[in-house]
Amino acid sequence: MESRHAGAFAVLDAGGGVVLSAGEIDRPVFPRSAVKVIQALPLVESGAADRFGLEAESLALACASHGGEPRHVAVAERTLRAAGRDAGCLECGSHWPSHAEATRALAATGGQPSAPHNNCSGKHAGFVCLACGLDADPRGYVQPEHLVQREVKAALEVVTGYVLPQGSHGIDGCSIPTYAIPLRALALGFARIGTGHGLPPARAAAAHRLRQAVAAHPFLVAGTGRFDTAVMEALGERVFVKVGAEGVFCAALPELGMGIALKCGDGATRAAEVAIAALLRRLLPRDEAAERVLEPLENPVLRNWNGIEVGSLRPAEALVTAA
Amino acid sequence: MESRHAGAFAVLDAGGGVVLSAGEIDRPVFPRSAVKVIQALPLVESGAADRFGLEAESLALACASHGGEPRHVAVAERTLRAAGRDAGCLECGSHWPSHAEATRALAATGGQPSAPHNNCSGKHAGFVCLACGLDADPRGYVQPEHLVQREVKAALEVVTGYVLPQGSHGIDGCSIPTYAIPLRALALGFARIGTGHGLPPARAAAAHRLRQAVAAHPFLVAGTGRFDTAVMEALGERVFVKVGAEGVFCAALPELGMGIALKCGDGATRAAEVAIAALLRRLLPRDEAAERVLEPLENPVLRNWNGIEVGSLRPAEALVTAA
Repeated sequence: MESRHAGAFAVLDAGGGVVLSAGEIDRPVFPRSAVKVIQALPLVESGAADRFGLEAESLALACASHGGEPRHVAVAERTLRAAGRDAGCLECGSHWPSHAEATRALAATGGQPSAPHNNCSGKHAGFVCLACGLDADPRGYVQPEHLVQREVKAALEVVTGYVLPQGSHGIDGCSIPTYAIPLRALALGFARIGTGHGLPPARAAAAHRLRQAVAAHPFLVAGTGRFDTAVMEALGERVFVKVGAEGVFCAALPELGMGIALKCGDGATRAAEVAIAALLRRLLPRDEAAERVLEPLENPVLRNWNGIEVGSLRPAEALVTAA
Repeated sequence: MESRHAGAFAVLDAGGGVVLSAGEIDRPVFPRSAVKVIQALPLVESGAADRFGLEAESLALACASHGGEPRHVAVAERTLRAAGRDAGCLECGSHWPSHAEATRALAATGGQPSAPHNNCSGKHAGFVCLACGLDADPRGYVQPEHLVQREVKAALEVVTGYVLPQGSHGIDGCSIPTYAIPLRALALGFARIGTGHGLPPARAAAAHRLRQAVAAHPFLVAGTGRFDTAVMEALGERVFVKVGAEGVFCAALPELGMGIALKCGDGATRAAEVAIAALLRRLLPRDEAAERVLEPLENPVLRNWNGIEVGSLRPAEALVTAA
């Protein structure tokens, strides 16, 4: 055993009952990008998405932490054009694509990264559309007091049932506020996102539409070789799963009426991926499609630069036994 | 507090006395690349380095986990040429440079990564020279039963005073065997590397020559923007410090006669860097050069894609208070 990770998780039903848990689930954690589907609800619910004729691809990208591959960039730009805007409106900052091949391809053409390459550009394009749809000036939409972020904060509070403390937030990698929320409340929120129970009808419909959009375009929510894309390509609407920075995952299992939230305490994505794969595998019926995608994600084999198997990752006991 | 890391460390003098420690220091851990300076001892001690006229740059690169920047690649190739060999002899495998700009520059010229770009290519070029210097066929030098790896294993045992269990090893990223060794023994080994105490004269001289080579060429041991390079550029021969994969650091403080070994339990390099910076800062005299390089490495500020300060890393209490 070379290295070891520890964390906490909560699986709840939409009535607030705890199905499974381990560790501290009432301490607030920053969910980071794991709640993008909740942050995208106002875009749909406000009517902005319909007003600008946004397609499912734009909605899927609004829920994404994407790799900056060409199709991700194209959809972000198309989303902005639908509202009569362009990349100059994005306030997320620029970075080289997280997808290594996309970065090398961009460098090979002498290109430089721009805001649409930012892994959050779809969410931000959605924020710009939301502002325009509400007839507000999109400028400054990343600030907590802007109408867009007030709408987003309200959606987080209503869906998770957790009252966010006034004036207490972090700043996320893409410059919007990020609010700490307990895993228990996040899991409840995702049980509601998956079922609609406990949500007003328009919000439940918006959640369903976003889940359908991601299930129809799982490539857009992450990208080539990525965990969320692989799971939703295989399992479609049976699972909605979303990674967040610093070892967070949130997921909805609509058929089972459950929501999941987990945090690896040290922030490691590799451990969070094994953990969410183990929980999904434990909870879902073990049919062939689920086994084929989840078993290798729960037990990844590590190979070195010569392709030699040098180790593996394994789920912690609590993921398999906790009640 | 968003994420939290835990680990163990040992600071020993060359007589085996524990100066400071925290956590489990008698459980074997894989030191990975942190022991490259020990793995390079046979190259010098055997006379192979002198036989092929290797310069200080080749010796520094033999101790390196480098970023694959052009100068690293050039020195690796020059080292091989000195022994009449070329990159075809390297058995480390290829990967794109870990230095992001070097990767983009390589991609921009339509290039592909080769073995000299591998972060371990300097160590492997040294292994090839060692084999040739011993008049052995370098082929298969990564295998535990090859003369090269038997020499390397013997050096690890003698320097750390820890008898490596027969037939029990892992395979490192670059395909050579990696042996688990307790932090206590690693810290003792680095106290010896820094002082020569407890080593045969030829081995003590080889250790000194390797430390001098790295101090003269700190860029070669890591590269642009890297921790080890920054510390040794600032502090020269006062500190020898080397990172290993999965949250390991080993260091020698020759003036103080101390060696340090630490492991972040979850394998995180970001935490291991803060921890070793905290220990170096605590142990070294707080002059201006030490403060200027170590204070920001002990307390790094995190900025997002817009350059906004969004958080910081902080050393754990035990690093400041443990006795």
